[in-house]
Amino acid sequence: MYQALKERVLKANLLLPKYNLVTFTWGNVSEIDRDKGLIAIKPSGVEYSNMKVDDIVVVSLTGDIVEGKLNPSSDTATHIELYKAFPLIGGIVHTHSRYATIWAQAQLDIPALGTTHADYFYGDVPCTRELTDSEIATDYEKNTGLVIIEEFKRRGLDSVAMPGAIISGHAPFCWGKNALDAVHNAVVLEEVAMMALSTRQLNQTIKIQQTLSDKHYFRKHGANAYYGQK
Amino acid sequence: MYQALKERVLKANLLLPKYNLVTFTWGNVSEIDRDKGLIAIKPSGVEYSNMKVDDIVVVSLTGDIVEGKLNPSSDTATHIELYKAFPLIGGIVHTHSRYATIWAQAQLDIPALGTTHADYFYGDVPCTRELTDSEIATDYEKNTGLVIIEEFKRRGLDSVAMPGAIISGHAPFCWGKNALDAVHNAVVLEEVAMMALSTRQLNQTIKIQQTLSDKHYFRKHGANAYYGQK
Amino acid sequence: MYQALKERVLKANLLLPKYNLVTFTWGNVSEIDRDKGLIAIKPSGVEYSNMKVDDIVVVSLTGDIVEGKLNPSSDTATHIELYKAFPLIGGIVHTHSRYATIWAQAQLDIPALGTTHADYFYGDVPCTRELTDSEIATDYEKNTGLVIIEEFKRRGLDSVAMPGAIISGHAPFCWGKNALDAVHNAVVLEEVAMMALSTRQLNQTIKIQQTLSDKHYFRKHGANAYYGQK
Amino acid sequence: MYQALKERVLKANLLLPKYNLVTFTWGNVSEIDRDKGLIAIKPSGVEYSNMKVDDIVVVSLTGDIVEGKLNPSSDTATHIELYKAFPLIGGIVHTHSRYATIWAQAQLDIPALGTTHADYFYGDVPCTRELTDSEIATDYEKNTGLVIIEEFKRRGLDSVAMPGAIISGHAPFCWGKNALDAVHNAVVLEEVAMMALSTRQLNQTIKIQQTLSDKHYFRKHGANAYYGQK
Repeated sequence: MYQALKERVLKANLLLPKYNLVTFTWGNVSEIDRDKGLIAIKPSGVEYSNMKVDDIVVVSLTGDIVEGKLNPSSDTATHIELYKAFPLIGGIVHTHSRYATIWAQAQLDIPALGTTHADYFYGDVPCTRELTDSEIATDYEKNTGLVIIEEFKRRGLDSVAMPGAIISGHAPFCWGKNALDAVHNAVVLEEVAMMALSTRQLNQTIKIQQTLSDKHYFRKHGANAYYGQK
Repeated sequence: MYQALKERVLKANLLLPKYNLVTFTWGNVSEIDRDKGLIAIKPSGVEYSNMKVDDIVVVSLTGDIVEGKLNPSSDTATHIELYKAFPLIGGIVHTHSRYATIWAQAQLDIPALGTTHADYFYGDVPCTRELTDSEIATDYEKNTGLVIIEEFKRRGLDSVAMPGAIISGHAPFCWGKNALDAVHNAVVLEEVAMMALSTRQLNQTIKIQQTLSDKHYFRKHGANAYYGQK
Repeated sequence: MYQALKERVLKANLLLPKYNLVTFTWGNVSEIDRDKGLIAIKPSGVEYSNMKVDDIVVVSLTGDIVEGKLNPSSDTATHIELYKAFPLIGGIVHTHSRYATIWAQAQLDIPALGTTHADYFYGDVPCTRELTDSEIATDYEKNTGLVIIEEFKRRGLDSVAMPGAIISGHAPFCWGKNALDAVHNAVVLEEVAMMALSTRQLNQTIKIQQTLSDKHYFRKHGANAYYGQK
Repeated sequence: MYQALKERVLKANLLLPKYNLVTFTWGNVSEIDRDKGLIAIKPSGVEYSNMKVDDIVVVSLTGDIVEGKLNPSSDTATHIELYKAFPLIGGIVHTHSRYATIWAQAQLDIPALGTTHADYFYGDVPCTRELTDSEIATDYEKNTGLVIIEEFKRRGLDSVAMPGAIISGHAPFCWGKNALDAVHNAVVLEEVAMMALSTRQLNQTIKIQQTLSDKHYFRKHGANAYYGQK
């Protein structure tokens, strides 16, 4: 019944090993059908090499399984909170990609140091605070979503201009217009995280100029964008 | 006679080059048949590209060759000590994989810095003390096993919750339920060793929260695990 | 009409993913026909995997489209300024290749530390000053070219002996006799940028001897070159 | 006439791109026929992808071309000096492989930090002094060989137990029993150079224990070796 949605989600999940964003089964992509209020997501702990469209699980925004025989990703509750809080996003990806995870482990924002970053992320990519012991003990995956949302509120961030975040001691979540766009942003995040790490070896304090960051972001996004084909 | 065991061991050895854990012949995987008290292990110094099932050597727990025409891995005595001391493990892998070896050369534990680590290794992966000159001079490979076991006793570590160790100045050993599981853990160790190295560039002292480490380990292991499919 | 030129430019663009210099569409190569005063360049935002010879855009030195249905690269104005200022160059490549971009983000010259560098680049590869806010606001891409040219004039650099530069907070531009030669230089720049980064980890101040740099450069370039076949 | 020698040298040269030791044409392998006093070596500046057995050049120990239509490698004079000074070696390889070159650019020995190193190189891999201006000006390639030999004499090194060196500001030379063995050692040098670099990030001063280094070296080399098959 949700064949097209599930096929897009399968295809987006299979891009994770292609772009070297995952080891084994460490990652998951979902996409939401906003009209129906349903999310299609990767099953938990299934190898990418064997995944078929019927393995993709469809869940409601309350986390109930609507279609599928397998357990959905153990991170499903995080996806649900993000979809509820950020109404403009349509796809979410979670991985333990190396360089974004390194920044998450160091518990530092991924600083905006160049135009590659500015082309996709408007400002530093936020690292959340640590979860409290009680947030970890009960509803851990749901609270992982809530701590991202709290960070966005605290800093006044826009989920479209900042399509990702890293969780302290854990790893990144990225999102976008749909599942494919979310994966695209996850690839970029990994690339800019890698370059930021080595830039910090050479220069501990430098940041991109605000005007240059604005220029590159708005060259690709918004009403006055002029990058690409119309 | 031991065809199925030898085939599993061959297959696990061939995963080492596939996962980029070895250069040339620098690695070996074994699996034990606990009922028979026999170990199948890679032959010494044979190229992976040419290895056949009949090249796999079967040895007893006293190190005697039971089947096979080639010399077993020069590290066989280390495997034997680990199988004797850790009755719950079924497979062992030794490599000189880059990032785990870097931590071994630095003679430092691989610190638990994130959930990727906590998903598989419960706490810092221990680095052994240096072997003494006499431990190196006589029964070197056996003593390599003994120094790992000593470290586990000294720290009160559990061989199931901590499926690996690194030897000072040398390289890692990993283990698991069987040969395949041991290789799986060796891949993870390399991944977390890589990320820990760069995390330390950004932050010299940070550690994962104990509650978060617990959460991730017990989400995947033990009676209350809920990751994956039943 | 400009079939041969466009085919060379297409072929040179397709080398960028082959040499791992680009992610997604982040790069562009052009070549100039000096007799006709026309430049063939990659279209903006088009995937390399789908690019065809008729997608390549031909523009004049005033930036007018002479042939092609797509928008030319958003960096076309930078290419034009470089062709106008450096009459001996025939091809230009822009990428966000990782290591050259790291140095650009750190806003540091790529120092000449070894003979690999000296074989292709005579001296440190210059990093430009930051653009001013007004240079960013108006004619940004044109000003990106002008700030490179300004840096070459200020330092008295020769565009043939120094076939590249990095832009502060942005990324590299390389050039050469033609499109293919420019890509060749971009590969080398990435290689020497990678090695310089790690050399600086081991030694913060060392530089190549001037006499050794001269020897290697002039062994491959100029009237007394003796590397390769005649 | 020298078909078998040339075929071995071609095959060894083609291993350089296979093992990621070279970019473009930056590397060369030779092998000597000690009975005839003749060396087969890669031609200068020829792409690996097009190289044929008849492109391999045979030269005498005075550098005269005995067979072949192309110029021999510009580094031929370095190979000749090494063959003359080290009578037990049969093959030589020169590359600009990344990590060995990084240590050469930093002008530091590659320190012996682990058993991977000790399995092949007995002690720190020496970095030569810088060449003087007059050594660079006249007979540069010959003097590159002589400065290696000088370093071996000064330190009392054995060309069999230490099958390689790095040239200050330049890159590595490795050697071995024949061309294939020299390439094997070049792969190992790159691997240990990579691991030493990151080990130094974690620990600035540590060295491998001398007794452990001895154990690993003599486990694989000399009269009492017991690694591999007889």
